[in-house]
Amino acid sequence: MRFNLKLHASFLGLLWIINGLLMLACLPVAWYYAEDTVMALAAAATITVAIGAAARSYGRGGTKDLRRRDGFLIVTLGWLSMSLFGCLPFLLSGAIADPTDAWFETVSGFTTTGATILNDIEVLPKSILFWRSLTHWIGGMGIIVLAIAILPLLGIGGTELFAAEASGLSTDKLHPRITGTAKRLWFVYVLLTGIEMVLLYLGGMGVYDAVNHSMSTISTGGFSTKNTSLADATPYIQYVVTVFMMVGGTNFALLYLLFKGRPGRLFRNEEFRTYALIFGLATVLVTLTVLWVTDTGLEKAFRHAVFQVAAIMTTTGFTTADYTAWTPFLSLVFLLLMFVSACAGSTAGGLKIVRHVVLFKNTFLEIKRQLYRSAVFPLRMNGRTVPSNVISNVLAFFVAYMMVFAIGTVVLAFLGLDTESAIGGVAACLSNVGPGLGSVGPSSSYAEVHDAGKWVLSVLMLLGRLELFTILVILTPHFWRRI
Amino acid sequence: MRFNLKLHASFLGLLWIINGLLMLACLPVAWYYAEDTVMALAAAATITVAIGAAARSYGRGGTKDLRRRDGFLIVTLGWLSMSLFGCLPFLLSGAIADPTDAWFETVSGFTTTGATILNDIEVLPKSILFWRSLTHWIGGMGIIVLAIAILPLLGIGGTELFAAEASGLSTDKLHPRITGTAKRLWFVYVLLTGIEMVLLYLGGMGVYDAVNHSMSTISTGGFSTKNTSLADATPYIQYVVTVFMMVGGTNFALLYLLFKGRPGRLFRNEEFRTYALIFGLATVLVTLTVLWVTDTGLEKAFRHAVFQVAAIMTTTGFTTADYTAWTPFLSLVFLLLMFVSACAGSTAGGLKIVRHVVLFKNTFLEIKRQLYRSAVFPLRMNGRTVPSNVISNVLAFFVAYMMVFAIGTVVLAFLGLDTESAIGGVAACLSNVGPGLGSVGPSSSYAEVHDAGKWVLSVLMLLGRLELFTILVILTPHFWRRI
Repeated sequence: MRFNLKLHASFLGLLWIINGLLMLACLPVAWYYAEDTVMALAAAATITVAIGAAARSYGRGGTKDLRRRDGFLIVTLGWLSMSLFGCLPFLLSGAIADPTDAWFETVSGFTTTGATILNDIEVLPKSILFWRSLTHWIGGMGIIVLAIAILPLLGIGGTELFAAEASGLSTDKLHPRITGTAKRLWFVYVLLTGIEMVLLYLGGMGVYDAVNHSMSTISTGGFSTKNTSLADATPYIQYVVTVFMMVGGTNFALLYLLFKGRPGRLFRNEEFRTYALIFGLATVLVTLTVLWVTDTGLEKAFRHAVFQVAAIMTTTGFTTADYTAWTPFLSLVFLLLMFVSACAGSTAGGLKIVRHVVLFKNTFLEIKRQLYRSAVFPLRMNGRTVPSNVISNVLAFFVAYMMVFAIGTVVLAFLGLDTESAIGGVAACLSNVGPGLGSVGPSSSYAEVHDAGKWVLSVLMLLGRLELFTILVILTPHFWRRI
Repeated sequence: MRFNLKLHASFLGLLWIINGLLMLACLPVAWYYAEDTVMALAAAATITVAIGAAARSYGRGGTKDLRRRDGFLIVTLGWLSMSLFGCLPFLLSGAIADPTDAWFETVSGFTTTGATILNDIEVLPKSILFWRSLTHWIGGMGIIVLAIAILPLLGIGGTELFAAEASGLSTDKLHPRITGTAKRLWFVYVLLTGIEMVLLYLGGMGVYDAVNHSMSTISTGGFSTKNTSLADATPYIQYVVTVFMMVGGTNFALLYLLFKGRPGRLFRNEEFRTYALIFGLATVLVTLTVLWVTDTGLEKAFRHAVFQVAAIMTTTGFTTADYTAWTPFLSLVFLLLMFVSACAGSTAGGLKIVRHVVLFKNTFLEIKRQLYRSAVFPLRMNGRTVPSNVISNVLAFFVAYMMVFAIGTVVLAFLGLDTESAIGGVAACLSNVGPGLGSVGPSSSYAEVHDAGKWVLSVLMLLGRLELFTILVILTPHFWRRI
C-alpha cells in the first residue's frame, strides 16, 4: 500500500467527530432563540459524528508510521472534508439551500477568509450564523498548529522560517512535539478569544454578537452577524476589534512567550517589527488620504483608517466603511496590503511578512552581488543566516503565488467579472481576506459571481490557506508514483 | 579617480554625435514636404553634435580600462542623455512645446515603448514625426547590442542566459567581441527594416508611412504616423506588420544564424518554441473570444486577434482595434501578455520568455523537491544546466520587477489614475508596450496624466528597458563607495 490509509482514516475520523460535536454547540443557541433549526443541526451533527466514528473504527490498529506524503494528503483532505461536512448545517436547515453557495461559504469559513455569498446576513437563523462564525474559529485553531508545527516538518514554502520561533515550546519527538505545541497555542487562542468577548460585552455588545465577533476576529476570518459588518459599532468596539485583529495577525508562538513573561522575543522579532512598521506607515498614509479627500474629522478618519488597514493586512476583512469608495488610490493601497498580509504562524493568510523580508533582502543582496561578483553575502534574519534552500523555496513560493493569482484573474474575468473585480476578488480569496474590489468589494458580496467562479474562488481560498505547495505537491504525477 | 571619466566622455560623445547626425536625416523630409522645421532640426543637430564633439575632445587620451561600474553608468547615462538631446527637435520646432511631454515622448521613443502624449498625431510636421519614429529605430539598435553583448558581461538579471545564444558570432576579446557582434546584429536589423519597407510599399502604403512603420515595427516600438495606428490599413498590411512584430520579438542572434543558413538553432531554441507556443495559444483564445462576443467574421476576428496578440507580446503596441472594448476578459488577457513579453536578445521589453521558463521550471522543481528532500534536480535549458547563481538572479529580477510594478501603480493611483488605468499604464510602460488599459488604453493617450505621473512613467520605461538592475545598482550606496 502506498499510503498509510488506516492512519488517514483514524486521524480524519477524529477531526470529523470533533467537527460534529462542535455543531452541537449551536443547539443551545437554537433553543434560546426558539429557532426551528434544531432538527437540522442535530441531523448534521449525527451524520458527521457517525461517519467520523466509522472512519475511526476502520483506522483502528494501524501503524503510526507517518511519511511526508501522508502529511500532504492528510492536511489537504482534512480541510476539504471539514468543509464538506461543514456544509450540512447550512443545507439541512435550508438557510443556504444552494450547494455551491453552501460550499463557498463553508470553505470561506474554515479557511478564515470571510468572503460571503449572503447579501442579507441578518435574515439567517442565529444558530446557523453561530455555526458560520464557529467554522472560522475551528479553521483558525487548525491553521496555527499547521503553520507552526506541521508545515515546517513538511518543508513547505519556507515555513522552516516560522518554526524557528517555536523553539523553546516543544519537545523533540515528533508526535509529542505537535501535541505539546498545539496545546500551548490553543491555550493562547482560547484565552484571547475570551478576553475579546469580555471587552466587547463590557462595551455594550450583546453576548451573542460578542461571542461571534470574537471568534471571527481572533481567527482573522471576518464573518459578521450584521449586514453592515462593524460599521454601526461604537468607536470603543471598533478599536477593540482593531487591536484583536492585529493580535490575530501575530505569530502565536511569540504570543505564547509573551504570556509566559518573555516579551523580548516578540519585540526583538524582525518579522513582528516589520509588521508593526508597515501597519504604522499604512495607517498614517490612509488617515491623511481620508482627511484629504473627505471632510471626516481626525478621530473618525484615524479610526476608519487604522481599522481597515488592520482588517486587510491581517486578512480579516471586517469593514467599518466602504474604503473603495473613498478614492481609487486607496483601492490600490488596500489591494497591495492584501499581498503584504501579516505574520507567519498567525491565523492570517497571504504571502506573510517573513517571506517579504526574505524576498526584499535577497533582491537587495543580488543587486549588491552585481557589483562584487565573487563575494558571498549571506541573508540574515533575527541574527541567523537563512539557508539557501529556504531562500530558494520562498522565491519559488512567490512565483507560484503570482502564477496562481494571474491564472485566477483570467478565469474569473472569463466568467464575467470586470478587470478590477477579478483582480480584487482573486487577491482577496487567495490571501484569505474576504471582500475584494469592485463588484465583489466591501459594499457587496460574492452572490452574483458565476457558479463556476465560486468553485474556482473556493479552490483559491484552499490553495492560499494551505500555503499552495501542500496542494500543488499532490497535483504532481510524482506524488502518486510508487517509490 | 573612481570612474574612468575620459572614457565615459569619449563614448557618450560618440553617441551624441551619431544622434545629432541622425537628426539631419529628418531634413530631406522637411524639404520634401516644405515644412518650416528646417531651422529647428538644424539647430538641434548642431547643438547635439557640438556637445558630442566637445565631450570627445575632453575624453581624448583616456585609457581603455573599462570596469564593471563604468559599464552600468555608461549604459544608463547613454539612454538618459540620448533622450535629453532627443527632445530638442520636438522643443525647438514647437511641435511638442511642453518639456515634460517632450521628455515623455522621447524616452518612450528611445526605450521603444511607444506610449504617446499626442492626441492628434497627424497635426505634427512629417519631419518631426519622422524623428519620432527614428528614436524607436535608434533605441532598437541600441537594445539588441545591449542585451546580447553588453548586459551579459555585467551579469544583469540572468542575461547570461541570452549570451549563450550569441556564441559562434563573436570573437573572444572584449572590445572586438562587442564591435563584431554589434555589426552582425545591425546587419540583420537594417536588412529586416528594409524588407518590411518594401513589402509595405508593395502593399500600397506610401513611402513615408512605409519607412516610419517599418522603423517602429522592427524596434517593437509602436509609434504610428496615423491617429488610428494601423486600424485603417489594409488586411495585407496588417498581416505584414504582424509578421515583422513577431520577428522583432525574436532573438536577433538567432535571426543572424537563420540568415547564415542555420535555421536549426532558431527552431530548436527552447525560448523561441515557448514564444511560438504562447503566441499560438493566445491567438486561438482571442480569436474565439472575439467571435463569441462580437459578430465579426472569422477572417477579421483572426486578423485582429493575431495582430493584437503580436503587438502586446512583442511589446510593440500598435493597434488595429480597441481590444479593451471587446470584453473585460480580453483586457486581462492582454494585461497578462504584457508580463509575458517576447524573447530575450530581441527589441522587446518586459520580463522575457526565457525568464518565465526559468521561473516555471524552478517552481516545478521546487515542488518536486518537497517530495524528495535530499535529491538535487538541476534546472536544464536547451540541454544545458543553468547555474544556480543565474537562477537566483532571475528570481531576484522577478521580485524586483513586481516590486517596481506595485510601487508604480500606487504612485500613479495617487496622482489620479483609477485602479485599472494605473495597473494597465504602469504595466505597459514598465514592459515598454505603450498603450495600457482604461484611461490610458489604446483608444486614448497619456496626455491627461498628471505631469508628475509622466515623469514617473518615463522612469519606469527606462527601468524596464535597461533590465532594472542596471539602474538599481547605481542607486545603491555601494556603487558610489570607494573600492
